[in-house]
Amino acid sequence: MLLRTQGKPRSQTLKRKTPMAKSNKTAITPTRDQDYAEWYQQVIRGAEMAESSPVRGCMVIRPWGYALWENVQKAMDKRFKETGHENAYFPLLIPLRFIEKEAAHVEGFAKEMAVVTHHRLEMQDGKLTPAGPLEEPMVIRPTSETIIGEAFSGWIRSYRDLPLKINQWANVMRWEMRPRLWLRTSEFLWQEGHTAHADENEAREEVLTMLEVYREIVEEHMAIPVIPGAKSEGERFPGAVDTFTIEAMMQDGKALQSGTSHYLGQNFSTAANIRFQNEEGDWEFCHTTSWGSSTRLIGGLIMTHADDDGLRLPPRIAPDHVVIVPIIREDSQHDTVMAYAEDVAAKLRAQSFDDAPVKVRVDTRKIQSQEKRWDWVRKGVPIILEVGPRDIEEGKAAFSRRDQIREKKQFLTIAEIAGEIEELLWGIQSTLFEEAKAWRAARTREDITDLKAFEDHFNALKGNTFNADGGFVKAWWCESSESEASLKELGVSVRCIPLDQPEGEGKCVLTGAPAHRMAIFAKSY
Amino acid sequence: MLLRTQGKPRSQTLKRKTPMAKSNKTAITPTRDQDYAEWYQQVIRGAEMAESSPVRGCMVIRPWGYALWENVQKAMDKRFKETGHENAYFPLLIPLRFIEKEAAHVEGFAKEMAVVTHHRLEMQDGKLTPAGPLEEPMVIRPTSETIIGEAFSGWIRSYRDLPLKINQWANVMRWEMRPRLWLRTSEFLWQEGHTAHADENEAREEVLTMLEVYREIVEEHMAIPVIPGAKSEGERFPGAVDTFTIEAMMQDGKALQSGTSHYLGQNFSTAANIRFQNEEGDWEFCHTTSWGSSTRLIGGLIMTHADDDGLRLPPRIAPDHVVIVPIIREDSQHDTVMAYAEDVAAKLRAQSFDDAPVKVRVDTRKIQSQEKRWDWVRKGVPIILEVGPRDIEEGKAAFSRRDQIREKKQFLTIAEIAGEIEELLWGIQSTLFEEAKAWRAARTREDITDLKAFEDHFNALKGNTFNADGGFVKAWWCESSESEASLKELGVSVRCIPLDQPEGEGKCVLTGAPAHRMAIFAKSY
Repeated sequence: MLLRTQGKPRSQTLKRKTPMAKSNKTAITPTRDQDYAEWYQQVIRGAEMAESSPVRGCMVIRPWGYALWENVQKAMDKRFKETGHENAYFPLLIPLRFIEKEAAHVEGFAKEMAVVTHHRLEMQDGKLTPAGPLEEPMVIRPTSETIIGEAFSGWIRSYRDLPLKINQWANVMRWEMRPRLWLRTSEFLWQEGHTAHADENEAREEVLTMLEVYREIVEEHMAIPVIPGAKSEGERFPGAVDTFTIEAMMQDGKALQSGTSHYLGQNFSTAANIRFQNEEGDWEFCHTTSWGSSTRLIGGLIMTHADDDGLRLPPRIAPDHVVIVPIIREDSQHDTVMAYAEDVAAKLRAQSFDDAPVKVRVDTRKIQSQEKRWDWVRKGVPIILEVGPRDIEEGKAAFSRRDQIREKKQFLTIAEIAGEIEELLWGIQSTLFEEAKAWRAARTREDITDLKAFEDHFNALKGNTFNADGGFVKAWWCESSESEASLKELGVSVRCIPLDQPEGEGKCVLTGAPAHRMAIFAKSY
Repeated sequence: MLLRTQGKPRSQTLKRKTPMAKSNKTAITPTRDQDYAEWYQQVIRGAEMAESSPVRGCMVIRPWGYALWENVQKAMDKRFKETGHENAYFPLLIPLRFIEKEAAHVEGFAKEMAVVTHHRLEMQDGKLTPAGPLEEPMVIRPTSETIIGEAFSGWIRSYRDLPLKINQWANVMRWEMRPRLWLRTSEFLWQEGHTAHADENEAREEVLTMLEVYREIVEEHMAIPVIPGAKSEGERFPGAVDTFTIEAMMQDGKALQSGTSHYLGQNFSTAANIRFQNEEGDWEFCHTTSWGSSTRLIGGLIMTHADDDGLRLPPRIAPDHVVIVPIIREDSQHDTVMAYAEDVAAKLRAQSFDDAPVKVRVDTRKIQSQEKRWDWVRKGVPIILEVGPRDIEEGKAAFSRRDQIREKKQFLTIAEIAGEIEELLWGIQSTLFEEAKAWRAARTREDITDLKAFEDHFNALKGNTFNADGGFVKAWWCESSESEASLKELGVSVRCIPLDQPEGEGKCVLTGAPAHRMAIFAKSY
């Protein structure tokens, strides 16, 4: 019975309304329809995931948000290690002379770098004042190619030292004038992979391997469908020869770049003198790569799965799989109900999901049980069980799935729930993924083939609204710089040139010229 | 046979010489005896754990060093969560107005804070120049009490919100004029716990609980014996009411503060307005705590366990438990020896240690096998196995324990090794711990009872030398500020007033006044 709806999108209409809602009141105000941008803020607030800080552009990541990031980290770190990478850590500060070494790189980041100019504070006229000016100012890393390149140049001597495959988990800073929680903050947490190789082929293979690792984590753990592809010239990482990306579609139809992987050629190795002696004894510059993904992914998670009642979490990255809410109406019931709740928790923890015990929390807070229930709805826990005095005799619980929270609760035996929990969690995982894929499919236009139709399509949009018809336009593109530059006015960009391409050729949607590949066009975050 | 020497200190003389050395040549030059400070640098270099960076005072943590930190993190994080803490993340930058709020705090850190004054770079006269001056400068966090206090003041409303128990894994910066790898660097990685409680008792209990967690991780995982105790007035954290510490002894007899836990009273809650409504509806200030430990612990690990051949790792935090070095003299042997090495690895990985599979690495690098062996000796891997063509038929390997690396290799069957590996690793773990405890015991003086003897003892030391007689002096102390201040001249400090105190009273070693508690005096890092 539990499994009846597993693995299938809840609603084939894909409207993500709340069918069978007992009341029209949603747990989040406003709804996506009323004010998408504000809804996003309120989902974050309602789930206690993060908040703005008194430091301009920086956010505080609250425990529920951090736990999600930890789970993403754990899944990624495992795959990084399995693909032969080791973690290391490099300085937070980068002297200006390193940043200057790669011209395109410095130009790309100069406008958004926090600069450290002093190394102590002094009281002057009763006021705390910067003192101890540095001979050379330093920037807080916006990314670490230059400082890691310096280390690599010392570590690499011979072809025997290659490939060198390093990852760093770190905070970075890119000054933001218009910050937005998770999506665009001055400081953010991320990982940055940096590798050096003897030849281009191996380096390019690494770039695509790591893109595939990102795809795997984002699709298979976070249940966010993405399109892996190459970035166009105008969207490349400053200093890269080629940039690859995974692009996701948010519920407002905008694209979110969710991870990038760069082939840097010999640009950075030449700038930082990363050389090796090949088997013949000649010195060559290495081919390097870098790839990164960040806490921005959590913003993507929200905008992919949250609904008007708050967050919905794919079980593979949920901090708790099941929350048990004890229903206690009189003090005299307290001990027996709590004991039962713990007993149910123990039975479920004895089950496994995704190669680990099922994660179960008993909510023991001293607040109303209805308040508890809605807290966990807003936080997106996949399964909520309510247990009261009446359930003890029958060995039952009131069962709700977060992805069907407006449906009628089912009263099920603990044996039933325990027996099916693993399959149930996998079912929720795939339901969320399938829903998001269907959402994207319904908002991807492949029938726009000329500039007029293209312009009309994007001009018709009223900015940042829920369920906008915008979405992705997939069309043939000639890949000329001029045509890419012309998109700026429309507020549209080439999101990627998908790795997966149809046979044949076509006519460029922007210029009418012959085109060899199709591209994804969209507004974006 | 393997187990014969397990659990016992290798050498009862505690000289840590290298008995039965086939050659006098050590893997590290100079030895501890010759130049202790330089030996420390060379151990780090030889194990490829870290190196200085071009950024003044900041180090690069190389993969082997980072893997150790990751293992410490993993062990600690588990215990933090088991003791009811959640991880979160707060901004790197702190506006000056927050730092200013607690007077003692700002005074304690003002001299070592990196200050951010600009938010972009511009080309001026062909030179990259800081631009976009900030209205209010910000410091890179030296610790986060003030910025976390601000968040707590928003999260806490009622006694129902308490206790609030948060931990942060982060980088912090305290400008260092005399940096030393791992021990004292301008930037370091750490964790900082921050909790808020309704009353003093509960807060003080938290402070001691976390001190005990530190003791447990440092002693039971890192095999570094420590003395838990209270800090004297002169050594307290700026702004704290009470500071507790765990103090370890390095091989030069100096103390290393290895983790601190602070009861902050209502000092920070008053400064940051962290208040709650109690059950009667009255507003009260919270009692807060903070506690921290850092990558400095890795420096302590080195100075506790390393010898003249390099690092020696306690198995519980070793990145690899066993390294297999294939011995290949002719190309024709390559495939069979490698296949055998992988087979041995698989058999050992099927065994478990410390509730996880035994971690085994096969060293496949294309370098001489002797070079490989000594690389792993310097890196401190607990067990090294060498396998060559001759061993295959007999199903054997040449077995070495890192803590007995100068003993004769034993030729053992894989079945023997696999059968005893778990016990063997525990044996190495306890051997290292027992050796370090004996080392400390032999260098702790409890027979110094007056000022003359005390001064003579510390004056006799010639600074920072291996196996100095300095070590710890444990003596009765009257705890007066004057007597503590008088220690400065000697370069000695009160390391702690141990939690574990003898019965009775005594006469202060410094002043002759009556004393109620004994203290540990030492030179320190």
